[in-house]
Amino acid sequence: MTPHIEIDNAVSAAQAAAPHWAKSDGPRRADLLNALATGLEAERAELVALADRETKLGLPRLNGELDRTCFQLRRFADYARDGGPFACHADPAVAGPPPQGRPQITRVRVPLGPVAMFSASNFPFAFSVLGGDTASALAAGCPVVVKAHPAHPLLSRAVHQLTLRVLASLDLPAGLVGHIDEDSFEAGMALVAHPGIRAVAFTGSLSGGQALSKQAASRPRPIPFYGELGSINPVVVLPGALEQSLDEKARLLAGSVTQGAGQFCTSPGLVLMLDTPESHAFARALAREVAAVVLHPMLSPRISEGYKAGVRSLAAEDSVEVLAEPGWEHEKSSGFVGVTSASAFLDKERLRHEVFGSSCLCVLAKSMAQIHAVLEEVAGSLTVTLWGAEEESAENRLLLRTAQSIAGRVLFKGVPTGVAVTPAQHHGGPWPASTQALFTSVGLAAADRFLRPLALQDAPDWVSQSQGVPA
Amino acid sequence: MTPHIEIDNAVSAAQAAAPHWAKSDGPRRADLLNALATGLEAERAELVALADRETKLGLPRLNGELDRTCFQLRRFADYARDGGPFACHADPAVAGPPPQGRPQITRVRVPLGPVAMFSASNFPFAFSVLGGDTASALAAGCPVVVKAHPAHPLLSRAVHQLTLRVLASLDLPAGLVGHIDEDSFEAGMALVAHPGIRAVAFTGSLSGGQALSKQAASRPRPIPFYGELGSINPVVVLPGALEQSLDEKARLLAGSVTQGAGQFCTSPGLVLMLDTPESHAFARALAREVAAVVLHPMLSPRISEGYKAGVRSLAAEDSVEVLAEPGWEHEKSSGFVGVTSASAFLDKERLRHEVFGSSCLCVLAKSMAQIHAVLEEVAGSLTVTLWGAEEESAENRLLLRTAQSIAGRVLFKGVPTGVAVTPAQHHGGPWPASTQALFTSVGLAAADRFLRPLALQDAPDWVSQSQGVPA
Repeated sequence: MTPHIEIDNAVSAAQAAAPHWAKSDGPRRADLLNALATGLEAERAELVALADRETKLGLPRLNGELDRTCFQLRRFADYARDGGPFACHADPAVAGPPPQGRPQITRVRVPLGPVAMFSASNFPFAFSVLGGDTASALAAGCPVVVKAHPAHPLLSRAVHQLTLRVLASLDLPAGLVGHIDEDSFEAGMALVAHPGIRAVAFTGSLSGGQALSKQAASRPRPIPFYGELGSINPVVVLPGALEQSLDEKARLLAGSVTQGAGQFCTSPGLVLMLDTPESHAFARALAREVAAVVLHPMLSPRISEGYKAGVRSLAAEDSVEVLAEPGWEHEKSSGFVGVTSASAFLDKERLRHEVFGSSCLCVLAKSMAQIHAVLEEVAGSLTVTLWGAEEESAENRLLLRTAQSIAGRVLFKGVPTGVAVTPAQHHGGPWPASTQALFTSVGLAAADRFLRPLALQDAPDWVSQSQGVPA
Repeated sequence: MTPHIEIDNAVSAAQAAAPHWAKSDGPRRADLLNALATGLEAERAELVALADRETKLGLPRLNGELDRTCFQLRRFADYARDGGPFACHADPAVAGPPPQGRPQITRVRVPLGPVAMFSASNFPFAFSVLGGDTASALAAGCPVVVKAHPAHPLLSRAVHQLTLRVLASLDLPAGLVGHIDEDSFEAGMALVAHPGIRAVAFTGSLSGGQALSKQAASRPRPIPFYGELGSINPVVVLPGALEQSLDEKARLLAGSVTQGAGQFCTSPGLVLMLDTPESHAFARALAREVAAVVLHPMLSPRISEGYKAGVRSLAAEDSVEVLAEPGWEHEKSSGFVGVTSASAFLDKERLRHEVFGSSCLCVLAKSMAQIHAVLEEVAGSLTVTLWGAEEESAENRLLLRTAQSIAGRVLFKGVPTGVAVTPAQHHGGPWPASTQALFTSVGLAAADRFLRPLALQDAPDWVSQSQGVPA
């Protein structure tokens, strides 16, 4: 195996920093997270300009994403200061023989140790160097080794330099947030295999995620791999939703399909409707609205090529009627909208592939049973949106049951893009939406991924008075 | 692949029962769990006699284990009735643009669906048909397909027949608790690969668990595999603990080593001490006490052969001095105690293998640094016991840090055998103690293994009033 000196150095430094950080208290962790947010804001203009040069996502979006990143850092600061990682549960001793009789037991949580974090192409701030994975891992008491994404290497390096300055200003070791520039699949595999790494957080493609997930499971000592790999995000539009404001709803959905050139894990790639005249009208209205939006360039040539190939594959299907398609020959392109039948969707495996980018397939079903069948075939998705299910009915109840069996989040209004950072959020879902469906990568529960429960039995005072702060 | 008709039938019945059970409320789940406990108690005499014929574990132990099993069922009944599986977290909407502005989000949990449960050889009641895995899965709203253990097939069948009668009396489908008799490795692999299975709970050997864990990860849609595979359970005896009552402590530890012929996952297989005259005296006292206990026969010829091979391998090492050894030639045998140096333990990989049965290796270290090195080499264990760490000191703090980094439970008094069923309990630990170190198989948190979080966004009243009960 090729030596990876950069990886070895970063992981060694993270291992050296781990015990110190594991026993840091909430205020100490909060100070770091808040200082990182302040640091990002202080360098906002330069960082956003650099991000725009590398990703072409535009200043408004990137400023908004930086806001979100600082918001996340500060919420995890509050979480740490309020004792979230140190929450413990104590059972008093009960005299007598078991099973009623028992010793004193306190359950606390210990940080797992160095976390390998793979930056996302599509969130240069919010899921990269100082993004949600890093914020939650630091709040949990774990060092992080960041794998930069090749779509924004200079930004990654700049944010890491800022991080090092903040760490130094707080007398914290540089190893607390390491940074790997090396851009190769092999480097990623070596990082996940490194014995000093104790967990992996990954946002990216299905193929890359699957390979890294197998690598994590094949280690002599397997480690948790928290991957978010892909999602089609079906939007079910029931007849009731099309009774009024059809054009307005088409515009709302088109905004979600085209937002960020469709480069969101929650971008809606499938609109599922009963085959009615109104549904056809909605599909055409959606196509009109999508065609009217000029997309900004995509994040990288590789992503752009993948998008083109995916759209061409959909358009080439006999069963797919193209309603809007990107003007490839023009400088400025728009998104793709097609329409097909539920039977075709169920028949043809390649209609079900996620097309990363602004692409939406309208699937028309002959019956509610077919709608259920399509959702069951999708099987794992970050979100399912149900429009027109406001009233209680046996049919809506059944639909919610199917939706919740395949999704990490079910929406009854609005669109799936724009994931709120709230304590109750759950950003995950059955495979392949995420590799560990019981955990979330957005919201405060994201810290749970990096905290391992530990029972302390009959602990002496010096231990039980530590209030959940590990030794 | 050979067809497995019994497996197909059981999984199909579980799938059919799953939606109904997922939407059952707490009192309904509690009624079933309580009725199962009552049913076990009503047939206690016959079941315990049958268990003793098959496992030779003796009536006192088996009666105690049946008590524990009923206790577990009733605690999970309370948990379900008190709303444990239905706990939800609601964030109100906040007006304005993100990141502060946000929609209304409620996080609930949905049952994963049919759970494959592999019975344990060594707990014919408490980790078999109606054991902790089944109780926690049923409380979580999941059907269970039980794989019987070949060490007690008749008992397994009898407990399942009882279960079917209880299910019928409550008008619940038989598919809620399925039962697979087929005794082959291939059947286990087929059960884990079955697309209708959504999670696996396993207690057993490292080799079997590794194979099944890989099978779960290699499915087209991977599922969580909760395995408990093996554990050495080091007991660190610090000099302070040997200042008084040395013989009494040796007797206490010998009781743990020999309990159930050492056939417990928490059986202490390693005593770690500084190399002092008192430690040598303690090792000899432990050997005397272990030699004085006549062990009952082991659970199966396979387990007995594995034990003999493990002990012979230890005894054959030049670096191991045998202090007590089983009298193989006699009808009644006792346990094994050996002593070796920490350097030998660190050098020789085979000294570190778990010997399932009454076997304890005393390891004498030249320094505290060597004690740390030995614990780090063990790396994953259900428990670490620290005797003599009552006082706060830098040394004890460091020792606790190492202990907690490798264990799921750290004890400061008593012995690791006898796992209390309490809300704060954590029975797990870094690999290979468990395959998913963030989850426990004992205690109420065991139900968390089978509940997947789901965010409901802007849910209408009929959904948000369901109080966490899935649609």
